[in-house]
Amino acid sequence: MTARLDAQIGFLKEADKLKSVLRASRLVSGARRENSAEHSWHIMLHALVLADQAGPEVQVDRVLRMLLLHDIVEIDAGDAPIHGNPDHEEMARKEAAAARRLFGLLPGDQAESFRTLWEEFEAAQTPDAKFAKAIDRFQVPVINLENGGGTWDEYEVTLDQLDTRVGVPIRRGAPGLWDWLLPKLTAFFARRDGTA
Amino acid sequence: MTARLDAQIGFLKEADKLKSVLRASRLVSGARRENSAEHSWHIMLHALVLADQAGPEVQVDRVLRMLLLHDIVEIDAGDAPIHGNPDHEEMARKEAAAARRLFGLLPGDQAESFRTLWEEFEAAQTPDAKFAKAIDRFQVPVINLENGGGTWDEYEVTLDQLDTRVGVPIRRGAPGLWDWLLPKLTAFFARRDGTA
Ligand SMILES: [Ca+2]
Repeated sequence: MTARLDAQIGFLKEADKLKSVLRASRLVSGARRENSAEHSWHIMLHALVLADQAGPEVQVDRVLRMLLLHDIVEIDAGDAPIHGNPDHEEMARKEAAAARRLFGLLPGDQAESFRTLWEEFEAAQTPDAKFAKAIDRFQVPVINLENGGGTWDEYEVTLDQLDTRVGVPIRRGAPGLWDWLLPKLTAFFARRDGTA
Repeated sequence: MTARLDAQIGFLKEADKLKSVLRASRLVSGARRENSAEHSWHIMLHALVLADQAGPEVQVDRVLRMLLLHDIVEIDAGDAPIHGNPDHEEMARKEAAAARRLFGLLPGDQAESFRTLWEEFEAAQTPDAKFAKAIDRFQVPVINLENGGGTWDEYEVTLDQLDTRVGVPIRRGAPGLWDWLLPKLTAFFARRDGTA
């Protein structure tokens, strides 16, 4: 039992490093960039609060577990900003290696079940994963609207790009959230681009 | 439906402030103090990974929801360091007011269910709450052992005090974790106090 616990606690100490992975997005206050650990907490809170936006087949507790684990690979692979233009194949390769190393610190049964859940999230095909992805995409636009544009300015994002990169996954997993967001985005970009 | 969603998103934006509540404890690396949002994520990961340390009557998914919400009151009430000596009655009063205001931003049904879950955690009487408390107490000693003493030096903590403030709740909710921790604590304090 001690070897099992030693491995588990070793993983938990290594996971602490997610608090030092910085994302492109900022706090609502704009004060600083957020890290991937506090971001993970925040989107889990989104999933719980916004659970009534999920389809009836979604199991919110599975979604919470998925979101708890979803960014851990960034400890090795880093965060790929959604409006950056990373090499997607290269990124997928790095993240798969990260999942093997990091979840591999755990006892075999947990390594396997955590990696499987992370792969389900990444594939974004099941109802749970579609909702988890929608929630993950929804948080940043809400923050950007709040702090005057945030990452949209930095990456020179247009409303068309937002529709592809954010609108598509949100409509797939939580369409009501896109209905809420779209008029606010439209008004924001019209103002920013001087067409209002 | 829009009024409901407006209220929910208003709460989620306010909750972002938990990322700016600093705790006494530091990252494993020692680099900086951790904030209550990233701490919440980290102890949820502890609860999932260490679930086999819970009694058979514990529902881990309920524990995860509890831990997701457990520190939100700190946005108004601040963090009370476990080795500080706060006025416990005053702190409980401030936290109850914080729970009313913060969860009160949500639609009525959610305000009620979130506050009830937070009160269950605080009361620490149910199996789920006892396990959640044990996990919440377990993380800091592991970090302190890793970074050379951390908050124990700052607050001049003795092993006897640790037994009362940390040992008691861990033994109540996850005794196997105390069995793992105690020899390490004993060795650390013997070295620190020069009795080894
Ligand atoms: Ca991410």
